[in-house]
Formats: sequence, C-alpha cells, structure tokens
Amino acid sequence: MAQEEVQNGGPEKVAEVSFTALKPQLMVEAPKAADAVQFYKSAFGAVEAGRTVYPKRKADQEQPHVLSAQLELAGSTILVSDIADNSTPVKTEGTGYVLCLETEDVEAAIAKAVSAGGVAEGEVTEGDGACCGGRVGKVKDPYGYVWLICSPAKKCGDAEA
Amino acid sequence: MAQEEVQNGGPEKVAEVSFTALKPQLMVEAPKAADAVQFYKSAFGAVEAGRTVYPKRKADQEQPHVLSAQLELAGSTILVSDIADNSTPVKTEGTGYVLCLETEDVEAAIAKAVSAGGVAEGEVTEGDGACCGGRVGKVKDPYGYVWLICSPAKKCGDAEA
Repeated sequence: MAQEEVQNGGPEKVAEVSFTALKPQLMVEAPKAADAVQFYKSAFGAVEAGRTVYPKRKADQEQPHVLSAQLELAGSTILVSDIADNSTPVKTEGTGYVLCLETEDVEAAIAKAVSAGGVAEGEVTEGDGACCGGRVGKVKDPYGYVWLICSPAKKCGDAEA
Repeated sequence: MAQEEVQNGGPEKVAEVSFTALKPQLMVEAPKAADAVQFYKSAFGAVEAGRTVYPKRKADQEQPHVLSAQLELAGSTILVSDIADNSTPVKTEGTGYVLCLETEDVEAAIAKAVSAGGVAEGEVTEGDGACCGGRVGKVKDPYGYVWLICSPAKKCGDAEA
C-alpha cells in the first residue's frame, strides 16, 4: 500500500486519536442538494440542523450552492452537499455502500419513503444478517443512494448457513 | 418517479414512522471484510460489537463469509460486509459519498490511518464548509472508501463566497 507523507508525523508515529463524530456525507449533482434535503425530510423525517451555502453567484442561478446541509436522523447526522459540474468528484471506489435505517415498522417506513419519491426495490425479506435485523426492505432515493429499512438489530452472532 | 406497490399501505397512506438507528454499511469484496474490520480498528480505533458470519462452506476456504460486522466508531455504528462474487452488488449510483470523522487532531488521525494502510490524499486544508469544520484532510482506505478527517463542526451558517 503506497503511503504519502503527512505533516507533523510520519507513518511510524502512531498517536492516540479520538473521534467525536462520524457523519456520512452524500454528494448530489448541483443544485439538487436542497431538493435532496427536502426528500430526506419527507421520506425519513430528517431534521435540518444547519446549512452552509455560497450565495448566488449568477443572477440567473435560482438556488444557492449548498456546501453542506446537516441533517439529524435517527440519532445520527448526515451531510448533503452539492457537487458542481466543474469540481472533482470524490472518487469512492468501494464495492458497495448503503445506509441502514432501523425502525419497528418496516412497511410503513418504506411506504412513506415511496410516497416522498423513493423507489422500493424487491420485497421485504427476512434479513440474512446484513443489518443484524429481522426484516429488511430496500429503497433507492431519487439521488441514487440505497437505504435498507430494517427491523431493529438483534445481538450479532454466528448465523447458520 | 416510478413507484412500486408496497405491502400494507400504498404511497397515499403516509404513516408516522420513527427510526432508532442509522448505520452506514460498507461492502467489501469477499473475503476481505475481516481485513477491513481490522483496518478500521487500527486506523480509527473502531471497536467491534458483533459479527454475523456464515460458517466455512468449503474446506479450502480460510475465512468465513462475513454477513455483517458491527463496529462502534465515534458514537456511531458502521457495518462491514463481504460481498461474494456471485451476489448482486448493491447498486448505489449516487454522485459521491464519503464518511466524515471529526477529531481535535486532524494530523495525528491522518498519520494513524496512513500507518494502518490508508493513503492520504492531498493536503490538510481549511474546510470550505464541507463538514462544517475548520480543517479537513482526506484518507482513502484499502477498500476504496474515502474518509474526511475534520476538526469538529462549528455551527453551520451562510458562508461568504
């Protein structure tokens, strides 16, 4: 694995580090971040805690560029950001990524997300441990992100094949 | 937006739904999930809270298939899962996705992640509001996921361009 130099400490020096928050950040094509925020409010009941924007830079630009909107959802924070055409998108090359949302009422949660503009994918199934939950459904949002709607996690343990 | 039928309620019926947890789930090529879990422990100090596995299905298969490993990190939970070659990967078509980790010591956090096998990308810069933080660095992990290492969030507000 290639290693680059970092300031104030090379790879050999391993410091104690503590982290105060973990926030998934979802990029959407500018200027759709404001719409995406509205979708996450309608679909999942997210609450907006703040928004950092650039002011309008063109007279004909209807929506300001959203650097970051901060949404509170299920005790966590997610960030939603506009990505401009001329900016370098963040290259995530991971195999796959979803957001698991736990709820007591999987069907109602899916229905609400669909009514807000999401698309249900497949049937609600008994989970295979993917979320450590019992029942799992899937919703793709209008911005391309996949949400697993799961019944609350059980204690993880060895599953029988 | 196409809408599919869901059981127990059509799109018109919008129920009150509450969510109890949000957990980002990272898929990695099987059988690397166990390695990825080790990386997130070494790089970020994640603590494993549980793991659901299929037992070995072949005598020559050294590592069990990880359906889901649950990691506690910065007060949140992330899930790490093996994706088998023959399974349908979750198709996330979003514009870009990163995980923001907040810490008081951005440089030390990056150094630690690099020493664990991550790759620092670019310099630590004064944030443009992406995480609502002051200073931001970037680390790509060996499984393709990008982590922003940020100083703690300030109150989000309108930024001047």
